[in-house]
Amino acid sequence: MDATFTPVGVVRTPYTRAEDTPVQAALNRGQDAVVEIAPEYAAGLDGLAGFSHVWLVTWLHRPHDGAEPATRPAPLRLVPFLLRGTGRELGVFATRAPRRPNAIGLSLVRIRSVEGAQVHVVGVDLLDGTPVLDLKPFFPDADTPDPPLSGGWFDEVELRDGIRPSDVGPP
Amino acid sequence: MDATFTPVGVVRTPYTRAEDTPVQAALNRGQDAVVEIAPEYAAGLDGLAGFSHVWLVTWLHRPHDGAEPATRPAPLRLVPFLLRGTGRELGVFATRAPRRPNAIGLSLVRIRSVEGAQVHVVGVDLLDGTPVLDLKPFFPDADTPDPPLSGGWFDEVELRDGIRPSDVGPP
Repeated sequence: MDATFTPVGVVRTPYTRAEDTPVQAALNRGQDAVVEIAPEYAAGLDGLAGFSHVWLVTWLHRPHDGAEPATRPAPLRLVPFLLRGTGRELGVFATRAPRRPNAIGLSLVRIRSVEGAQVHVVGVDLLDGTPVLDLKPFFPDADTPDPPLSGGWFDEVELRDGIRPSDVGPP
Repeated sequence: MDATFTPVGVVRTPYTRAEDTPVQAALNRGQDAVVEIAPEYAAGLDGLAGFSHVWLVTWLHRPHDGAEPATRPAPLRLVPFLLRGTGRELGVFATRAPRRPNAIGLSLVRIRSVEGAQVHVVGVDLLDGTPVLDLKPFFPDADTPDPPLSGGWFDEVELRDGIRPSDVGPP
């Protein structure tokens, strides 16, 4: 049985190509963006301004950067952007790659303000126009793992703020 | 334009009623569960065992506890379980309530082991049979917010491990 969701809003960012889009929201902490909620859902934002951070659950509707329609199934194994230099393949569920069996994105962003149906946020990794399926407030007790922590292969790569696929090299 | 997703697996837990299900995965750190991935997606799990934690992105397909079909739109304002004693209403996007415009769940769980197409995890807040839409490895640099942090109304409630709606009182 399939699940069908109707976007509740859209993200406005300066990014129009996946290759130029930072790979994770928290690695691009300086970039302002706006989440525009459809007017009929604006009442759902009441109370969100009290939180410092919110999860954006998005539909990564352009997994191919618009170059081709997403008709072929997503590969189950791939080389993540951050491992392009090594050629190392991983299962898609061990990566945060945008091309996934279900193209759902998860981005943690800081809330700057909530104004009417607009949520002004900082730190985005999303293409302009990305549909938003849900907003969930960051819940420190639920969203912070207990140690010991292991970040898998992420622990082995060097990250810097604002890193983009095009910084790492060709696919 | 709607987004349609096909579940890639299912969560097996001991919970069959929403009222008895812990309200957040991280508040129920002792409960074992199994994520059963459909065999055709099992190759996507390669590398996941190197992570301590994984996000389960789920379809909360029984927002009414099975008592009625989820045909009516979700309310945009509601009293969260944890605020039942106060009657305080909030916008749904300022809560983690399972009944949402798009019934997508987000649960952070510890990985115990990955065996074939099964991910054995600890800490669940999900009904038995909940469809899994995606698994995303916990990425410490991306999923940990920079201070200052504010947990909004969550900062005002007392939480204890394993707390369930039925502990708090009637809706």
